[in-house]
Amino acid sequence: MSAAMTFGSDNHAGMAPEVLTALAEANVGHASGYGDDRWTEQAENLLGNAFGDAAFALCLTGTGSNVVALSLALRGWESVLTAKGAHIDLDEAGAPEHIIGSKLETIATPDGRLTPELLDAALRAREQHHVVQRVVSITQSTECGTAYTPAAVQAIADWAHAHELLLHVDGARLCNAAATNRCGLGEVAPGADLISFGLTKNGAMGAEIVVAINPSLRAPIQNARKQATQLQSKMRFVAAQVTALLTDDRWLNHATHANAMALRLADGIGNAAGVSIIHPVEANAVFAVLPAARISALAEKHHFYIWDAPTNLARLMTAWDTSPAEVDQLVADIVAG
Amino acid sequence: MSAAMTFGSDNHAGMAPEVLTALAEANVGHASGYGDDRWTEQAENLLGNAFGDAAFALCLTGTGSNVVALSLALRGWESVLTAKGAHIDLDEAGAPEHIIGSKLETIATPDGRLTPELLDAALRAREQHHVVQRVVSITQSTECGTAYTPAAVQAIADWAHAHELLLHVDGARLCNAAATNRCGLGEVAPGADLISFGLTKNGAMGAEIVVAINPSLRAPIQNARKQATQLQSKMRFVAAQVTALLTDDRWLNHATHANAMALRLADGIGNAAGVSIIHPVEANAVFAVLPAARISALAEKHHFYIWDAPTNLARLMTAWDTSPAEVDQLVADIVAG
Amino acid sequence: MSAAMTFGSDNHAGMAPEVLTALAEANVGHASGYGDDRWTEQAENLLGNAFGDAAFALCLTGTGSNVVALSLALRGWESVLTAKGAHIDLDEAGAPEHIIGSKLETIATPDGRLTPELLDAALRAREQHHVVQRVVSITQSTECGTAYTPAAVQAIADWAHAHELLLHVDGARLCNAAATNRCGLGEVAPGADLISFGLTKNGAMGAEIVVAINPSLRAPIQNARKQATQLQSKMRFVAAQVTALLTDDRWLNHATHANAMALRLADGIGNAAGVSIIHPVEANAVFAVLPAARISALAEKHHFYIWDAPTNLARLMTAWDTSPAEVDQLVADIVAG
Amino acid sequence: MSAAMTFGSDNHAGMAPEVLTALAEANVGHASGYGDDRWTEQAENLLGNAFGDAAFALCLTGTGSNVVALSLALRGWESVLTAKGAHIDLDEAGAPEHIIGSKLETIATPDGRLTPELLDAALRAREQHHVVQRVVSITQSTECGTAYTPAAVQAIADWAHAHELLLHVDGARLCNAAATNRCGLGEVAPGADLISFGLTKNGAMGAEIVVAINPSLRAPIQNARKQATQLQSKMRFVAAQVTALLTDDRWLNHATHANAMALRLADGIGNAAGVSIIHPVEANAVFAVLPAARISALAEKHHFYIWDAPTNLARLMTAWDTSPAEVDQLVADIVAG
Repeated sequence: MSAAMTFGSDNHAGMAPEVLTALAEANVGHASGYGDDRWTEQAENLLGNAFGDAAFALCLTGTGSNVVALSLALRGWESVLTAKGAHIDLDEAGAPEHIIGSKLETIATPDGRLTPELLDAALRAREQHHVVQRVVSITQSTECGTAYTPAAVQAIADWAHAHELLLHVDGARLCNAAATNRCGLGEVAPGADLISFGLTKNGAMGAEIVVAINPSLRAPIQNARKQATQLQSKMRFVAAQVTALLTDDRWLNHATHANAMALRLADGIGNAAGVSIIHPVEANAVFAVLPAARISALAEKHHFYIWDAPTNLARLMTAWDTSPAEVDQLVADIVAG
Repeated sequence: MSAAMTFGSDNHAGMAPEVLTALAEANVGHASGYGDDRWTEQAENLLGNAFGDAAFALCLTGTGSNVVALSLALRGWESVLTAKGAHIDLDEAGAPEHIIGSKLETIATPDGRLTPELLDAALRAREQHHVVQRVVSITQSTECGTAYTPAAVQAIADWAHAHELLLHVDGARLCNAAATNRCGLGEVAPGADLISFGLTKNGAMGAEIVVAINPSLRAPIQNARKQATQLQSKMRFVAAQVTALLTDDRWLNHATHANAMALRLADGIGNAAGVSIIHPVEANAVFAVLPAARISALAEKHHFYIWDAPTNLARLMTAWDTSPAEVDQLVADIVAG
Repeated sequence: MSAAMTFGSDNHAGMAPEVLTALAEANVGHASGYGDDRWTEQAENLLGNAFGDAAFALCLTGTGSNVVALSLALRGWESVLTAKGAHIDLDEAGAPEHIIGSKLETIATPDGRLTPELLDAALRAREQHHVVQRVVSITQSTECGTAYTPAAVQAIADWAHAHELLLHVDGARLCNAAATNRCGLGEVAPGADLISFGLTKNGAMGAEIVVAINPSLRAPIQNARKQATQLQSKMRFVAAQVTALLTDDRWLNHATHANAMALRLADGIGNAAGVSIIHPVEANAVFAVLPAARISALAEKHHFYIWDAPTNLARLMTAWDTSPAEVDQLVADIVAG
Repeated sequence: MSAAMTFGSDNHAGMAPEVLTALAEANVGHASGYGDDRWTEQAENLLGNAFGDAAFALCLTGTGSNVVALSLALRGWESVLTAKGAHIDLDEAGAPEHIIGSKLETIATPDGRLTPELLDAALRAREQHHVVQRVVSITQSTECGTAYTPAAVQAIADWAHAHELLLHVDGARLCNAAATNRCGLGEVAPGADLISFGLTKNGAMGAEIVVAINPSLRAPIQNARKQATQLQSKMRFVAAQVTALLTDDRWLNHATHANAMALRLADGIGNAAGVSIIHPVEANAVFAVLPAARISALAEKHHFYIWDAPTNLARLMTAWDTSPAEVDQLVADIVAG
C-alpha cells in the first residue's frame, strides 16, 4: 500500500522536509565512518542539551536501540519487568531474549502503564532458582496511546531504585509524551537510567538513540551497539537526521501536531453512535471501537489497523504530517453512520 | 575528520547522486511500513533479475546482514569456518558468536582467500565433544583486496557441499568482485547458499541485502531479520537505494571506477623506491608497504590507515567517487621520495 | 536442614537402595567415558523398551534435560507456549531463554494443565514482528500435583501438530503420572515429540533423560547435550541409575507408593476444619490451605513449604520413601486443631 | 569398551573407594535440596581451607564449571584469550560461545602454556569494532600434560591485571599441577580471579567446583550456576564427594600417584627405539610418538588414543588407580619392538 495519507501508523509517514534537506547537505565529500565526523559531534551536542550528561549511541531501528540499551543493564540471569504487549514483549520477534539472553516478565496493565502497585505484585524474593529481576522497562508514550506524567515515571524510578532495579524507558514516541506533558525531552522520563529515544516516528528516515544516563552503564555503549548490528558506517547521515529534528524545536512541533490531530479525531468521533474510545488519548493514537458493520470499509479507505477484530477495535494513528482535512474526512466517514 | 576525499575507506564516500535523488523521490505521502510497499517490490524484482530465484531481506548494516544470513544456516552447536581476520571474525565485535551462538573457526590465509586445501586441513571428524562444522564463509572480494574467480568460489562451494556444509559469501564488496571478474552479480559467487550483498560501499547510504539462494534456508528470513534488529520501519527508503544502484548498471559503473582507481594507484607506485605492494590488486584496495620515514605524513595528508605499523603497511582504498586527479596526487606524493 | 523425613520435596529423599547398589556395582575397573560403555548401552535398551523408537541422551539435571530437549526443536526466532509457573518458566533461572535464545510465552491455567482451548486463545497469526510459535511444553505430572490423562495429552499433541507446532513434555515426574494413569511410560505422553524424563525424584541420585521421539529431531542430540554442559564423563554411573530404576518396574513401585502416600494424606486432612485442598491429587503433591494459626509450626515440624503465605497455602510432597506412619503423624498434627 | 585398566583417559577410572563410601554415608534420610544441607556446608568449609576466602559453587561437569566461571566475568561483547586446543576451545562443543555469548580468541602455543609474551602479541587496542578482551583462560595442568609453575601463573595474572583483564584457570587437573609443584591447591594458581576446580579426574564420580576468588565476581554465582543447568537437586551427593577427596589429603595422594605413574611410563619408554616424548611430563599424561608399525596394536591392547595419526602421536594417560604393573606392561610392550 502507498497512499496520500493513512491512519495506519506514524511510520507510514515519510521524512520531514528538513530531514531530507539535512541528508542532502551532509552528502558532501568524504567523512570518516562510524561516528568520527562533525555531524555526529553536532548531534551529540544537541542530545546533551536535551538530555543532560549521558552517553549516546545513534542507532537505526527501535528494536535495535532497545536491545542496545537493555544489554547495558543486564547479565544473562537477570530479567526485565515490562507491560504485557509492550513493544519489547510482542513486536520485536524475541530480540531482547535472543540477543541479550535475559528473560522478560510481563505484567498485565489496563492501559499500557505500569505502576508501583503492579510492580509490587510482580516482585519476587531473590533466590537461586529464579532470574534476578533487574530492569523495569516502560514505554513513554505507551503502545496504548497513553502517556505517563513525569511524576508517574519518577515514582516508578523510585520504586525500581529502592528495589535495586534500573529503569529503562522505551521512548519510540518520547517526543509525543513530552508534547503532551508540555515539558522537555530531559524532563519526561525523570529518574530513568536508560532511554531508547526514537525520532523515526517524528519525521526521521531512521534514527533511534540510546541514552545512557546512569554513569555505571555508559562505558560499553559503543561495543554493545556494534555487537547488536546497529553501527552504521556512514554515520553522518544518521546524525544529520538527529540534528535536523532537534534544531529549533522541530521535534516538538511535529509531536504537538500529531497529538493535536489525534485529539481532533477523538473529539470528532467520541460521541458518535456505536463508537467508544478505549484509552485516554494522550499521544498520537486513538483506540476506538467502531461500528461493526462499517469498520472494514473504513479501514480499507483510511488505511488503519483493526486492532482486535472480535471487539471491532481500531487503532487510528496520526503522524507529523497528518492534515486536519484528512482527520475531518475520517471523522465524517465514521460519524456518517 | 571530514575532507574533500580520502583513501581511508570506501565508506568514507557519501551517497551517489542517484541514491539521494531516489530518497527524495520516495519521500511522497504515506506508505506501509516494513516492506509492504511498491519500492520494496521493485527492489526485489531487480534483485531477482540479478541473483535469480532467491529470498531477499533488505538490511541496514553489513554486520546485520552477515548475522541474518548466518543465522539462517546455523544451529547453536554448529560452527563457521572462515579466514582469520575476516570481517565476521575481527570487525563485528563478536556479533556472530553472540547473536547466533555459534563458534567461528578461523583459518590463516596468505591473502584473505580460502581454498579447498586450507579447508581440508581444518576439517574434523564429527563427534559429540566438538561443534559440528556447518558453514564456510568467504568474503568476495576479500578484506585483502583480492577477489576469487568464479571458478574458485565454485570449488569452495563444491568442497562445502561434498562435506555437508553450506557456503556463505560476505559480499560487502561483491560489486567490486563482479567488476573485476567481468561478470554479473549472480555469477560471481556460484554455488553460494547465502550471500550478504552490500551496496553501502557502492554508493548507497546504508543498504545491505541478505540473499537466501538455497531453498531450504529461505522460510524464516523475515523473522531472522527482525530478531537481528535489522528491519527498518520506513523500508521504502532502503529499497529506493537498492533500486537506484541496480538500475542501468550503476553498481557496475561505480565498482568498475573504484577498481580502476586502485589499479591506477598501484601502477603509479608499484615501482617506486621503498614501496612494495603486498596483495594482488583485484578490487578497490591497495595494500602497500610505504617508506618508513614518510608514511605518517602521507597518511595524515591523504587520510588512509596504517594497517600494520611495525611493517609500515598501509591500506589505500578507493571509492565510487575517487578522482584520477586525487590518485595522481597520492602517487606523486608517494613517489616523490 | 537434614531430617528423618520431610514433606518439602521429593528431591529431599535420597537414593533408593538399588541405585546405590548399582553405583557400587558399576564401580569396577575402567570404562570408556561419555557413554561408550556397556552400562549406557543397557540403559538405552531399557529406555527403548519403555519409550519405543527414539534417541536418548542421559543428562544430569532437570533444567539440563529441558534445555537439551527444547534446543532440538527451536530456532532463535521461535517460541514455546507453556503454563505460567511451569518449571521452565519459573524455576530454571531463565535457562531456556538464555541458552536456547527463544522466547517463552506463558498461559495462565487453573491447575497447571493446558488445554486446546487455552492454546487456541494464545495462538497468533504468523508475521515478521513476532516470534514463530513452535513448541507447546506441558508438564506431566504438573507442578500443581495434577496429571493429564493420556487422552488429554494426545489432544494437545493433535492441536500442536495441526498448527505446525511440536509437543514437549517435561516429565520430571512422568513416573508419577504413569502410576496415576495405570499405564506405561511410553503411554502417558502420547503424541509427544520430545520428553524430558526424570528419575531423580523417583529415587535416582541424579539422572534425567532426553527422549527424542520425532525422527527429525534426533540427529544432533549428542552435540546439543554436550553444548548444554550435560555430558558426564563417567557416564556409566548415570546409566547404572537408569537401569536400576527401569528394572523390575522399580520406577513404578516408587511412584505408586509416593502417589498413595499423597492420597493417604489428602484423605486424612480433606475434611479437617480450616483445611481445603486446592487441586485434584493426581500425583505426589497435596496443595492445601491450612489453618493460619498453625501453618508455621506445622511447616517447621514437618519440613514443608508454605507455597503462598497470604492464603496459607502449603505444598505437601511425598516421595518414594515416605512412610505411612509419617503421613499419619502429619495428618494427626493438622487435624488436631 | 570397559576393561581392567586403560591409558585412554583419567576419566576412564571409576570412583575412589572413599567416594563411594561417602555416597553411601550421605544416603540417610531426607535433606534439603540445592545445597542447603550439612554436607555442602562441610564441603565448602574444606574448600575454604584449601582456597581461602572465595565463593564456591559445586557443579557436575567440567564444561559446566568452565561456563559458570567464565559467565561471572564476561559481558557479551567481551572475549576470552586462551590457548588453541584448550578444552574450552576444542572440547566443549562451543558451550562457552553459545551460553555466554562471548568470543574465544585462541593463541597457538608450543606445549599448551600461554606466556605474557604470547599474550602481548594477541593484545589489541580497544575500539568499537572489536570485542573487548576481558579474560585470559589457562589450563593448569594443561591439555598437553605440562604444568605451569606458580610463578608462571602469577606472571600471567600480573599481565592480565595490568591490562584490565581477569585470569580464569581451568583446573580440571589442578590436583595434578599442585602435586607436581609440591604446593597446596590454593598456591598453584596464584593471582587467579576464577578457578574451575575439578575432582572428577581425581577419583570423584562427578564433582567440579567453581571458585570465585575476586570479590567483585562472587555475587551471582548461584544464579549463574542454575542458569547454566549445573545445580543438582540432591546436592549432598556432590558435596560428599568433595569432602571425601579433600579430607586427609586424599586428592594429593591420588594426584601424586597418577603423576608418578606417568613419569614411570615416560622413564620406561623415553629411550626406546622409535619413541619420542613430545612435551615435558609434568602431570599425568605422556604424549609420545610411537613406532608406526605397532601403534595401532598397542592402542588396541592398552586402550589409549592415537592423538595425531599422521605423526603416530599417542596420548597415554594415567589415573589415580593406574598400577605400576600395568605401566610396566605397557612399557614392555612399547619397548619390545
